[in-house]
Amino acid sequence: MKKIKIGAVGLGRLGYQHAENIAFKIPGAELVALCDKDEVKLNKTADAWGIPNRYTDYEDMITNQALDAVVISSPSSLHTTQIAQALDAGLHVFSEKPLGTNLEECKIAEEAVERHPELVFMLGFMRRYDPSYAYAREKIRNGDIGNVVLFRGYSQDPESCIEGAIAYAGHSGGQFIDMAVHDIDLARWMVDSEPITIHAIGGCYAHQEFGAFKDGDNVAALMQMENDAMVFLFAGRTAPHGYNVETEIIGTKATLRIASVPQKNMVEILDHHGVRQECSQDFLERFEQAYLAEINEFIKCIHDHRKPEVTVYDGTKTTEIAYQCKKAFETNELIRM
Amino acid sequence: MKKIKIGAVGLGRLGYQHAENIAFKIPGAELVALCDKDEVKLNKTADAWGIPNRYTDYEDMITNQALDAVVISSPSSLHTTQIAQALDAGLHVFSEKPLGTNLEECKIAEEAVERHPELVFMLGFMRRYDPSYAYAREKIRNGDIGNVVLFRGYSQDPESCIEGAIAYAGHSGGQFIDMAVHDIDLARWMVDSEPITIHAIGGCYAHQEFGAFKDGDNVAALMQMENDAMVFLFAGRTAPHGYNVETEIIGTKATLRIASVPQKNMVEILDHHGVRQECSQDFLERFEQAYLAEINEFIKCIHDHRKPEVTVYDGTKTTEIAYQCKKAFETNELIRM
Amino acid sequence: MKKIKIGAVGLGRLGYQHAENIAFKIPGAELVALCDKDEVKLNKTADAWGIPNRYTDYEDMITNQALDAVVISSPSSLHTTQIAQALDAGLHVFSEKPLGTNLEECKIAEEAVERHPELVFMLGFMRRYDPSYAYAREKIRNGDIGNVVLFRGYSQDPESCIEGAIAYAGHSGGQFIDMAVHDIDLARWMVDSEPITIHAIGGCYAHQEFGAFKDGDNVAALMQMENDAMVFLFAGRTAPHGYNVETEIIGTKATLRIASVPQKNMVEILDHHGVRQECSQDFLERFEQAYLAEINEFIKCIHDHRKPEVTVYDGTKTTEIAYQCKKAFETNELIRM
Amino acid sequence: MKKIKIGAVGLGRLGYQHAENIAFKIPGAELVALCDKDEVKLNKTADAWGIPNRYTDYEDMITNQALDAVVISSPSSLHTTQIAQALDAGLHVFSEKPLGTNLEECKIAEEAVERHPELVFMLGFMRRYDPSYAYAREKIRNGDIGNVVLFRGYSQDPESCIEGAIAYAGHSGGQFIDMAVHDIDLARWMVDSEPITIHAIGGCYAHQEFGAFKDGDNVAALMQMENDAMVFLFAGRTAPHGYNVETEIIGTKATLRIASVPQKNMVEILDHHGVRQECSQDFLERFEQAYLAEINEFIKCIHDHRKPEVTVYDGTKTTEIAYQCKKAFETNELIRM
Repeated sequence: MKKIKIGAVGLGRLGYQHAENIAFKIPGAELVALCDKDEVKLNKTADAWGIPNRYTDYEDMITNQALDAVVISSPSSLHTTQIAQALDAGLHVFSEKPLGTNLEECKIAEEAVERHPELVFMLGFMRRYDPSYAYAREKIRNGDIGNVVLFRGYSQDPESCIEGAIAYAGHSGGQFIDMAVHDIDLARWMVDSEPITIHAIGGCYAHQEFGAFKDGDNVAALMQMENDAMVFLFAGRTAPHGYNVETEIIGTKATLRIASVPQKNMVEILDHHGVRQECSQDFLERFEQAYLAEINEFIKCIHDHRKPEVTVYDGTKTTEIAYQCKKAFETNELIRM
Repeated sequence: MKKIKIGAVGLGRLGYQHAENIAFKIPGAELVALCDKDEVKLNKTADAWGIPNRYTDYEDMITNQALDAVVISSPSSLHTTQIAQALDAGLHVFSEKPLGTNLEECKIAEEAVERHPELVFMLGFMRRYDPSYAYAREKIRNGDIGNVVLFRGYSQDPESCIEGAIAYAGHSGGQFIDMAVHDIDLARWMVDSEPITIHAIGGCYAHQEFGAFKDGDNVAALMQMENDAMVFLFAGRTAPHGYNVETEIIGTKATLRIASVPQKNMVEILDHHGVRQECSQDFLERFEQAYLAEINEFIKCIHDHRKPEVTVYDGTKTTEIAYQCKKAFETNELIRM
Repeated sequence: MKKIKIGAVGLGRLGYQHAENIAFKIPGAELVALCDKDEVKLNKTADAWGIPNRYTDYEDMITNQALDAVVISSPSSLHTTQIAQALDAGLHVFSEKPLGTNLEECKIAEEAVERHPELVFMLGFMRRYDPSYAYAREKIRNGDIGNVVLFRGYSQDPESCIEGAIAYAGHSGGQFIDMAVHDIDLARWMVDSEPITIHAIGGCYAHQEFGAFKDGDNVAALMQMENDAMVFLFAGRTAPHGYNVETEIIGTKATLRIASVPQKNMVEILDHHGVRQECSQDFLERFEQAYLAEINEFIKCIHDHRKPEVTVYDGTKTTEIAYQCKKAFETNELIRM
Repeated sequence: MKKIKIGAVGLGRLGYQHAENIAFKIPGAELVALCDKDEVKLNKTADAWGIPNRYTDYEDMITNQALDAVVISSPSSLHTTQIAQALDAGLHVFSEKPLGTNLEECKIAEEAVERHPELVFMLGFMRRYDPSYAYAREKIRNGDIGNVVLFRGYSQDPESCIEGAIAYAGHSGGQFIDMAVHDIDLARWMVDSEPITIHAIGGCYAHQEFGAFKDGDNVAALMQMENDAMVFLFAGRTAPHGYNVETEIIGTKATLRIASVPQKNMVEILDHHGVRQECSQDFLERFEQAYLAEINEFIKCIHDHRKPEVTVYDGTKTTEIAYQCKKAFETNELIRM
């Protein structure tokens, strides 16, 4: 099996993880190039893994004729330009979410994807590749839960990471775009419908700093979908217990809950605190397998000349909904789509 | 200890339970009179329990000089008139929720209570007397969870009871007044604040019959409280697994969940369906202890010449909020209080 | 309904609870006499509850012609004599476990019960009256779990009570007689068979003090029953998390677990310790309802002129098995019954 | 990084899984040869994966000069001979458990390992590489649970696999050697001590066929270790709910439970069966990650010129204890080691 040769851009926490997975855990792929603005980090990482091709400039990297594909984990506002550049250079593209930080950016990616129907484009909605989410989705598709009544999605970052979140608050796009976007994707995927009304509220319950960016440290949105299903989203940054991504889909025949306890592993502890399970502490711990599985799927799509289930239009639609949630939150008005 | 002599009106499911509790399980009380329009049921019950005084007319019963108090479990629209009549007759009053079906009715009760400051008036928000809810409330009051970020209340009746619910749909006042009223009381009690905005949605996901009454079989509301806390309410009639009353209070320091599994008892079953817990099937099963505890508290208040924590104004406020939820649902507008 | 007039002996923790239940929570019974060697405690309690008849001598109390029945919560070694005396005085008898501290004592009780077939005798195996144990028992009887393969019973007292346990170590009869006796009763009741072999081990893992009495702070026994079912018992005094009484019955068609989390209530806490449930801290908290239910059953048996399910012979057999466990532990030999 | 070239023998379920893992999921290894008596299966598998070297004779395979190591998943009785042959041929060896089916066989392996101190030998006790077991082990080593009081290990195969188990009953060595061997290894690893007494019981509760081999379909053993810790093992073949491998370690400061619900994934279902989690159905599903991790560790040991934690002597000791359990079961005597 020919190995897909990959260049990875962005060595932040998730970008580093993607690159490391490609280098050591994805048998069908080979990491041949790395790109990051931080030359020290770039060389340190590349040295450690024995990666010969190193770039501080993304446009340089994609001229490397050895490459088959790029994996983009750069800042959100660079995504769509880098996507278009790589596709135009004849490379398959995997990009982290969000697709873009506004609709105009998303259109750039859409057009590039449409220009290159022969290339694989995939967006990093890794939750779809988590075994539990995939299992739940299959049950819904099979009709096992009947009609969907309510989708409830929680995404909570741990309080222990609050300093980084505050520092990044001006660039994140806010809670809905930065965090709730995963739940918006899951809701559309599970419920199979689009929102018609959106109401959003929230506030700064522990950290007033987010107020300066018209954001909250905890926010929520209630949406009604075209098929009548209700969607409730909650995104917070102050969970004391850990990284809590929890989803419930209430149907007329059954309810499914995914990760209602964000358990670190299968160990239960009985001590003076009671009977307890320790929790995942970040996205890398919770979604370790999903991150591997999505890159594997990307590589397989390239090998098999097929397209991933998640399309560029999912990226645009999710960004659009996240924006409307943000607008609903800022204006305190009911948004009708 | 002198026994409080009680007349009970209404022998529906809950009224029967209250009367039976008073007759056999509340040592400080004595059931001396029963009232119900249905003479056959009235006599059958009174015979079985050896209750001498029987009435098909409530106004007759409250002239009985032997009585110290009444327990009202009649249809909701009769509550406030019967409350006023009993108080004016010098009787202590326990009334089932809701206080009234609209604000005007509630005012009747308020005025009667104000006319008789020497008498005990108590409203049947039994969840406050459930040991788990009381325990959670105490933790919140102690500051153990920090600031309240989100209150989430689910009240789901089992699908197995749907026929009765459909038959009663025209008289119930709708999901928000009939079911969500308990969660509204809990939210006000736990969060200690009042709503300023209300948005409500929902629909008929399994049973179109509710549409004829501008109601849904499953509905939800999102409210923001004066102290910024968010409140999400979900009320449904189609739960396949049983009677599901579940509450979550997310705070900045801890999250509390009450009955996130509506377990019937402490038995866990491992069989070909997996590892499972069977569920409570109705309110009498889930809140058996709370129903006893609230009547005990009513009796103790009479003995101790003190007033219960829950006041007539809680009844009015809860009814008002339920009405605004209903209005929000019917108009699909954002309500600002 | 005529009230059964009861004299209660023993005002230790459990004796006090029984007496208080009878005084205030059992409508069919009336507490008319109290007996305890400690005159201060006796008068304080009797004053508080308004009990006129007070005795420091048990033999005096049972001559009181007003009594219908006695409830015995005195030290274990007094049980059988007091049982015989009360029955011979024409009184119904409820006695706490164990029946006796050896087989000879048990025979005294057996003979007294046989002399008075018209009187109700009941032994305080309260777990049988816990709703969850009763529910599990019913499932087994219905054949829902198939053949019983293994019964596993844990009884653990919390480390927080260790001082009292050490002080009482010389009088308790040891772990098997003092604690495992409840599990032995449950095993016989659930499995419906008697042991043929017994092996027992254990030791002092935290508190060497028990060694002086040929006892351990944690002990275990493995028994094979006549019907081939296996029984594993574990009794400990050092549980850090609380009062842990947990039972599992593995069958060929299903497994039942009762209280595998000894949850204090239905509140779940998510904080920096993880996702956790607080635990019951003692037998009064865990078995509050069962203690009420067993006395209710005793009273009903008297009213209905019938005998409770648990007989004096269950008491003898359970004591005998506990003794053989103790012997197996002390000798480190395999006991064949 | 040079890839370790591996020849795999045995294409049963687990052997196939090991081979597939090496072929596709272990970046540091390369599957270059396959061996199985069944030529059809051999060629079908080798064709599908593109493996050039195929052998129906193990002795032929190990002469292949391209090989660095072998992975042995052949029938248990062949293990030690094949281990010795491979080591003598200069190959690193990973062998499935059990080391041998009796002590004499184990000695063959021990001697071969001692003859080749430069080669890596590893035994397939994969549970040690499961993240939850490893996490629990670390807590014990840190002293977090205090002194170990009781180790309880359950290994239950699902009833759905009973036909295969019956067919294999004459060759498996019985429940203790075939199944409990994993728990024996875990117990020694967690408790860090060796048994001094062993008592074992059990029977045929659903399937009499095992009786013909002096075996049971469900068996249990109680052992006391040199350091006083108690060990209770239960091994069954009739679990209705799935593949149940559950472990509890009760300490004086805390209790740890691993997989007390053998959950298939993080999905919880609320339907008319109650609130439930579906279960793992076999060892490949439950220990998917552990099987990968142990081979990864084997490969890393080869690369790093170090030895795995589990030694050939662990294999011998575990086999010896399993044999004594079997003997205790067959003779119904207490074994003193």
